[in-house]
Amino acid sequence: MRVSQQIFPRAVALIVTISKDGEPNVMTASFLMPISFEPKYLAFSITPTRHTFKNLKEVKEFTFNICDESMLEEAKICGSYSGRDTDKFKLAKLEKESSSQVKPPLLKKSPVSFECRVEGMKEFGDHWLVVGRVLKEHVREEEFIPLLHKSGDIFPRLK
Amino acid sequence: MRVSQQIFPRAVALIVTISKDGEPNVMTASFLMPISFEPKYLAFSITPTRHTFKNLKEVKEFTFNICDESMLEEAKICGSYSGRDTDKFKLAKLEKESSSQVKPPLLKKSPVSFECRVEGMKEFGDHWLVVGRVLKEHVREEEFIPLLHKSGDIFPRLK
Repeated sequence: MRVSQQIFPRAVALIVTISKDGEPNVMTASFLMPISFEPKYLAFSITPTRHTFKNLKEVKEFTFNICDESMLEEAKICGSYSGRDTDKFKLAKLEKESSSQVKPPLLKKSPVSFECRVEGMKEFGDHWLVVGRVLKEHVREEEFIPLLHKSGDIFPRLK
Repeated sequence: MRVSQQIFPRAVALIVTISKDGEPNVMTASFLMPISFEPKYLAFSITPTRHTFKNLKEVKEFTFNICDESMLEEAKICGSYSGRDTDKFKLAKLEKESSSQVKPPLLKKSPVSFECRVEGMKEFGDHWLVVGRVLKEHVREEEFIPLLHKSGDIFPRLK
C-alpha cells in the first residue's frame, strides 16, 4: 500500500515558485500540513526532479494557494505537466496576482493564499520536506469546500 | 483565521510514545503528512508543552496510528487530557499491542499503524515538527473511512 492511500484525504494546494531569471512555475501538492499557529508555518513535500525544486534552490520563496472544489481541473493540469516545457498558468487558465512580501505571484482563484519564505529544506527518502514561514496571507473566501486528494485520480469529497 | 481553518480537513492519528522509564503515552494529532513513498517517511507537529514532547526527547521513537471514523471518542479523549496525570489508554479503552522495531506500543483498533524512528525534530513558531522514518507498518484494514478534523469540535465527514 502506498502511503498516499494510508494517510488521506489530503487538502490540495498549488505551490508557486520563481526562477532566478524571474520565470514563475506552479505545481500541485497534497503532501502538506500546517505546523504552527502564531506565527504561521506550513510544510509540503516535493520530489527533487520537479522544476519547482530547482526554483526553490534558486529563490527561497513560494506562495501556497489552497484549492477549493472548483479547482479540480487546475490541480490535475498542474500535477501532470512539467514547468520545464509548459506554461502551466496559461494551460490551466490561472490568473496571477502580485505578492507583496515575496517574488513568486499568488493565484487569484484560490480561496486562501499564503506568501512564504523557505526556512527549512531537507531530504527524507525520495522527497524533500520544505518548511515555509507565512509572511502574509490573503483570505478571499472564509467559507469554502476544499479540494481533497487520495491517490491517482481519486479526489474524495466532503459531505 | 486560524491555520487549522484554512488547511483542512486533516486526517487524524494517535501518536504513541514512551518515557525513558517505560511509561507509554498517547496523543491526538492532525497536523501531519506523508513525506516519502520509499522508504516511507511522515511528519507531525507538536506543542512543546505536551507530555509526548518530553517522551520524544527521551526516547526518539513513536508509533503513528491512523484513526478511522469509529475512533472519534478516542481521538477526543487523547486530545483533551494530559498523559502527565491520566492513563489515556485506560480512559479511552485503547488496547495496546507490542511493536517489533520500536519501544512504544501500537494501537490495535487503528486500521493502519506505523512504527517510526525520529529522524528530525525542529522548532518552527509555536510548534515542533517531528519527522519519522517508518521501520514497520501494520495494515489491519486496507479499506477504511478516515476520521477527519477541521478545528475545535468540527470533524468533517467524507461522502
